[in-house]
Amino acid sequence: MKRLDEITTVASIGGGPIGGGWAAHFLAKGLKVKCYLHDKSEHQQFVDIIETAWDSLIQLGLTEGASLKNMKISFDLAETLSEVDFVQESVPEVLNIKQQFYEKIDHLLDNNIVISSSTSGLLISDITVNCKTAYRAVVGHPFNPPYLLPLVEVVGSSKTKPQIIDWVKEFYTYFEKVPLVLNKEIPGFIATRLQEALWREALHMVKNNEATPEQIDLALINGPAPRMAHQGQCMAFHVACGAGGMATNLDQFGPALELPWTRLKAPQLDKSLRNKMVDGCNKMAKGQDFKTLADKRDKAIVAVLNALKQN
Amino acid sequence: MKRLDEITTVASIGGGPIGGGWAAHFLAKGLKVKCYLHDKSEHQQFVDIIETAWDSLIQLGLTEGASLKNMKISFDLAETLSEVDFVQESVPEVLNIKQQFYEKIDHLLDNNIVISSSTSGLLISDITVNCKTAYRAVVGHPFNPPYLLPLVEVVGSSKTKPQIIDWVKEFYTYFEKVPLVLNKEIPGFIATRLQEALWREALHMVKNNEATPEQIDLALINGPAPRMAHQGQCMAFHVACGAGGMATNLDQFGPALELPWTRLKAPQLDKSLRNKMVDGCNKMAKGQDFKTLADKRDKAIVAVLNALKQN
Repeated sequence: MKRLDEITTVASIGGGPIGGGWAAHFLAKGLKVKCYLHDKSEHQQFVDIIETAWDSLIQLGLTEGASLKNMKISFDLAETLSEVDFVQESVPEVLNIKQQFYEKIDHLLDNNIVISSSTSGLLISDITVNCKTAYRAVVGHPFNPPYLLPLVEVVGSSKTKPQIIDWVKEFYTYFEKVPLVLNKEIPGFIATRLQEALWREALHMVKNNEATPEQIDLALINGPAPRMAHQGQCMAFHVACGAGGMATNLDQFGPALELPWTRLKAPQLDKSLRNKMVDGCNKMAKGQDFKTLADKRDKAIVAVLNALKQN
Repeated sequence: MKRLDEITTVASIGGGPIGGGWAAHFLAKGLKVKCYLHDKSEHQQFVDIIETAWDSLIQLGLTEGASLKNMKISFDLAETLSEVDFVQESVPEVLNIKQQFYEKIDHLLDNNIVISSSTSGLLISDITVNCKTAYRAVVGHPFNPPYLLPLVEVVGSSKTKPQIIDWVKEFYTYFEKVPLVLNKEIPGFIATRLQEALWREALHMVKNNEATPEQIDLALINGPAPRMAHQGQCMAFHVACGAGGMATNLDQFGPALELPWTRLKAPQLDKSLRNKMVDGCNKMAKGQDFKTLADKRDKAIVAVLNALKQN
């Protein structure tokens, strides 16, 4: 793999919002981006995605040299995959389409080049089952829109070389994403699993006439979301419980885990789980007391609410 | 019930972060607030909560006449409940504590006065099972911190008079909250159910060493949250799928509902559910096309990210 500061050109594969979003992100970071679309009918939508993205990327600040002129759209996969330093794959989220794609790269993509899949939750082990160069394949799962949301979940298969994972983590960091390297392969990774649990509960509620889509969105926007932009669910509960933190949360609301407050059954709250949660929150708190953390949370929420009001 | 513009005094019951948070909210709206604490040991923490809240409320803007001097703290429940226009109850989230409290109000609180429970998910039917004046009792569930997050979920029992629900909705709107009136009583209401599904999936992942609390929070903060502050999960998926919207989402990712991307099983995606989701999203879209909605989403995310960066 190239040194990060020598990288000039990446490929973004796929004409949908994720492929287009990645292309826009890399363009904004000053890279040349070779884009592969499967089908000419995708061309106009793809250009629209890039143009919509570009307006926002200007607001966030472009890297020196960034330009839409650095984008090259092609319908020839071999051409797109030649002379690139990295490949972000965003073909449709269908296992056999992904598998067929990773078979092709064996002979189309130089063996040294890393390929990262935008899959929302499929395992790279399954995706590369027939790929002979799986050692350089990883998941690099973004959140939509990929040019704005910082998260990229990174995980390899048992065939992926450990140094590839290290390089990919550094690559995404260098190009200003926030990589989250998973300990192990799990379907849906971390962020999709959390979102998917929420989504399925939402679908159940709509199905049972307990809520409408409008009520669900209203609840999220005005409830947990403005806080969650600053504080994840673990620290939100840690700080919500005053000085006692997560320990108090689990003591006080532990019994609520038995209640039918969602269709998902909770795991048993044993001592080991309790300690992991408490230790994790204490680590994140870095010695800051309740008042300090609540104060930071509140300043962040005020900033978010005021920003959205003025938007 | 009083006319909204004649309301001068409310009671906030409970010395924890929710009781304190509500007190701070009503104080910021220019009301006199009578606070009841169960225990003198709660006093210092309660004052800290109010003081932390007040800094942020100043940033959001106080209503004319708002002052911390309008707060009266008492350890005498009868005194607190006398001569008030509305009661927000935030006693501990334990069913029999709540039930005992609602028995007491029969003779301590004037029959015309509405009482609203901050319960995160208990049913007001269960809470008021021994209460003779249940007709004026509702749920008014805020999100923490109650002085910043706008949502209040409102639902009554079969005993609650319909005009009380109407009045409570107008009351919260008048005092600048965003009430969400539920169609029916369900444990956990809407927002808690969504959050609880996410939370239980998180606990499972920590228990199984699939994720640490730090990874969970990192994933939420950098993934779905900045978008969710502007767009709920339904509209996020509607807009993520380009021109086809939620219909394309359900066609394309419908099969993913069968995948083990969370421990919660999805409902069967039949035509009725599909139509409800598509119709709900189209209603929220109000005729705006993909590009317009994506553009608004992006502007909002940029505003949120820049606000948090500067914070």
